[in-house]
Amino acid sequence: MLQKSPPAENLPRAVGLVGGGVIGGGWAARFILNGVNVRLYDPAPNALEQVEVALKNARRAYRQLTLVTLPPEGSLNLVESLADAVRDVDLVQESAPEHLEIKQQLLAAAGRAAAPCTLICSSTSGLLPSLMQAEMDDPACMLVAHPFQPVYLLPLVELCAGTRTAPEALERAAAIYRAVGMHPLVVRKEVDGFVANRLHEAVAREALWLARDDVASLQEIDDAVRYSWALRRAAIGSYRMANGRAGMRESVLRWSFKWPWSRLTEKPDMGPAFLDKVAEQADALVKLDPLDISPAEKRDDLLVALLQALRSQRYGPGETLARWEQGLRSRAPQRVAPDSRPLRTLREVQHNWIDGNGHASESSYLLLCGDGTGTVVGYIRGNGEDIANSATYYTVETHLRHLGELRVGERIEVLTQVLGADDKRLHLFHVIKREGDDKPAATGEQMLIHVDPKTRRSAPVQSPIRERLMELARLHAQLPRPEKSGASIKMPWVGAARSDGDLREMGHGN
Amino acid sequence: MLQKSPPAENLPRAVGLVGGGVIGGGWAARFILNGVNVRLYDPAPNALEQVEVALKNARRAYRQLTLVTLPPEGSLNLVESLADAVRDVDLVQESAPEHLEIKQQLLAAAGRAAAPCTLICSSTSGLLPSLMQAEMDDPACMLVAHPFQPVYLLPLVELCAGTRTAPEALERAAAIYRAVGMHPLVVRKEVDGFVANRLHEAVAREALWLARDDVASLQEIDDAVRYSWALRRAAIGSYRMANGRAGMRESVLRWSFKWPWSRLTEKPDMGPAFLDKVAEQADALVKLDPLDISPAEKRDDLLVALLQALRSQRYGPGETLARWEQGLRSRAPQRVAPDSRPLRTLREVQHNWIDGNGHASESSYLLLCGDGTGTVVGYIRGNGEDIANSATYYTVETHLRHLGELRVGERIEVLTQVLGADDKRLHLFHVIKREGDDKPAATGEQMLIHVDPKTRRSAPVQSPIRERLMELARLHAQLPRPEKSGASIKMPWVGAARSDGDLREMGHGN
Repeated sequence: MLQKSPPAENLPRAVGLVGGGVIGGGWAARFILNGVNVRLYDPAPNALEQVEVALKNARRAYRQLTLVTLPPEGSLNLVESLADAVRDVDLVQESAPEHLEIKQQLLAAAGRAAAPCTLICSSTSGLLPSLMQAEMDDPACMLVAHPFQPVYLLPLVELCAGTRTAPEALERAAAIYRAVGMHPLVVRKEVDGFVANRLHEAVAREALWLARDDVASLQEIDDAVRYSWALRRAAIGSYRMANGRAGMRESVLRWSFKWPWSRLTEKPDMGPAFLDKVAEQADALVKLDPLDISPAEKRDDLLVALLQALRSQRYGPGETLARWEQGLRSRAPQRVAPDSRPLRTLREVQHNWIDGNGHASESSYLLLCGDGTGTVVGYIRGNGEDIANSATYYTVETHLRHLGELRVGERIEVLTQVLGADDKRLHLFHVIKREGDDKPAATGEQMLIHVDPKTRRSAPVQSPIRERLMELARLHAQLPRPEKSGASIKMPWVGAARSDGDLREMGHGN
Repeated sequence: MLQKSPPAENLPRAVGLVGGGVIGGGWAARFILNGVNVRLYDPAPNALEQVEVALKNARRAYRQLTLVTLPPEGSLNLVESLADAVRDVDLVQESAPEHLEIKQQLLAAAGRAAAPCTLICSSTSGLLPSLMQAEMDDPACMLVAHPFQPVYLLPLVELCAGTRTAPEALERAAAIYRAVGMHPLVVRKEVDGFVANRLHEAVAREALWLARDDVASLQEIDDAVRYSWALRRAAIGSYRMANGRAGMRESVLRWSFKWPWSRLTEKPDMGPAFLDKVAEQADALVKLDPLDISPAEKRDDLLVALLQALRSQRYGPGETLARWEQGLRSRAPQRVAPDSRPLRTLREVQHNWIDGNGHASESSYLLLCGDGTGTVVGYIRGNGEDIANSATYYTVETHLRHLGELRVGERIEVLTQVLGADDKRLHLFHVIKREGDDKPAATGEQMLIHVDPKTRRSAPVQSPIRERLMELARLHAQLPRPEKSGASIKMPWVGAARSDGDLREMGHGN
């Protein structure tokens, strides 16, 4: 793996995509949602439509994937010629059909039309870069950058240099892909299929044997993999468990190719009868497992959940995700001039917030309050400073009122008002509502204390954060005081019960 | 897949394990934590020790995996002979070394010593059941039940019948494995390696090729898999994405065995130089990625996170987990006679509750309150009744006070007192503290409203739940009223600031 660089500064201004389709569309979605302008050349009549589908799926997936604010979307520009697509861009990504001659011609033409030193990358699933470079005038900046479907979610991109590729081009490309949230993996030698596809092909081949021989149906093959080793491989991989030299040596000696089942390496005959069989099994699979969303959406929801799970462990693809979010945070727009409006935080109700009653669980409201607090803390921290040890607040008290239900996917705004502040204390009032609604779905009042993270004891907040906080408190003091601030839970025996009408708009359950 | 039956009634009273080791130890852990008594026969001097390690890891993993109360652990009984192990058990699980003759003898001996119709299952990774049955007097109840490491976490168990196995034995075994949270998959034909290992072996073989040819190191191979298709396969599998007949046919015709990289099927030479190389790479992997816990613990943490992520989607292995929890819930002990103590809920601080300040995030305290409420609602619902539409409470107001920090893995008790209740309203006070501590880490006061889940409007709670609630409220009225109930958040300008000393024991951050 190449050296890591801070993501934001390696972000390209614009990329040129040669070829849309599933892969090109996925690239378009990843770049655009990372704020990169895209110029797309694809002569197919439905090219734009395909990219729009990928963009729609990607927007949906990203809304679930991260709570961090995404940058403003890059533009999508469908251009008329290859030369138009590669002009004034930092990177050209070719995703044409897998025919060597087509790719050779497109890459050569792209090289001629692009500015010198423009990176020219091919999405090929396995063709050799040295062969693809054959027709290029200047192949030093050409390499393979092979992504995986869905390109906007799966983090891997395999980089493979041809004989005439400059090493510096790999470094530059890796930094760009890392900046858009990917995990670049440099393949050490040119081989057909690179690494991931050769491995995947091996499983796919064996799977077709099992289907041909009626050992298992497609559904059973999928289950056998995803209920067992794919889960383990997706988590920790295979070789880390050997825990070093001795374990690895023993494991290879003891287990590899010792069994009868190690020997099955031919390919099944792929005639019409076999095709009929697997096609029928694929239909049975759909019937057994009807989805209420498209397979692509279901796949994305599951991938999002797994990526988030790995992020909670800061491991593997989860670490890649966490690093991307860190980059996004550093690019998030900051309010420039203070004014007296409450600070605004935008969120979306997440799948994993939903409880057995089909609405956001009570604890997710406190997550939203936490996000509102985060906006205040981010605001007083300011931008671009050393924030490691500054402005750490611990919540000491919270009063939540639930006034309505929230459903998955709803866009939420949290409006946060500073009710008071001094050197150590911060008193906030959050109003949580659906974007555009007048009535809040909940309110949260919180008292926080500034803490020295080293001693974990209360400590006065320092300049210049202190000044920004006091200024914000002064401005917010001009806002009307929320009616319910300072309220306590009333005993149920005091006052009248609420009417049923009120309750339609209330609460969330256990 | 075989028909599903309600898990609890298929739970065996006791199982006999023949062979401990990694697989036998994993079985012991899964059965014991599901409340099943285990009789273990293993002549190895460190047999008990190995099982204890598996049990320790499994306890740790299950505490993170589920918030549902586990049943009291089954007993572990190390016995002196095979006959002792298989007597009075519902299932014998053989996990001896992978030598056909050893297994044949053990299985035959087990069959002779066990009661008639006792299920006798082999954990073999790939030997044919018909061969293993060869020496048995009555092989009708013998089959393969092949699990995956770690047995207590990975849900797959492959069931494979020999020529003399009775179909009814497969049904019975499947029900037992399902009852302990597994996903039984019946292999349709006897083949070496069954399904999952043949597929895994194919990847493992291709991976060693890539390592031999220096295309990628072990680390890179692991990353290539887990950052790309293993993530996708663990989530949705491979064939569901074809979305039926047409897509499958096209995909096979278009993609299968068309590429140069489909053709690499021989095995690398496994001489000493090659062994040295992979051993060295395995060491590099450890150095690059030093863990602060053991690889097994890290693997388990990651698997737990992925399984929980899939549970949030109720899909695949996540559905298996959810079903197991449902079974556990129906078996959870209920308090028999009401008394005046607060209701007690035991939890453990989860990894995914931890925030950037290294302690439980503020919203996790509300999860704990929700668990306390769940205990009250479960209590008044009683046991064994139709609970689908009864006793649904929505929280309308919460007042949380944070008094201390909670760290990952700490055992927590939530003590919940009913402060008041009527037909519609329920007023609770939760005290959250480390098990054994006197001082609370937090308190939560909540007001809830009973709701008709169909209309989502407030509705009076019905008999007999109403009576149980009123009785509980009457008993809890004898408890002292919590000092801070009815409190509100004080303005920061009123009264003196807390001392630094207090703050050591306070709060949690953003």
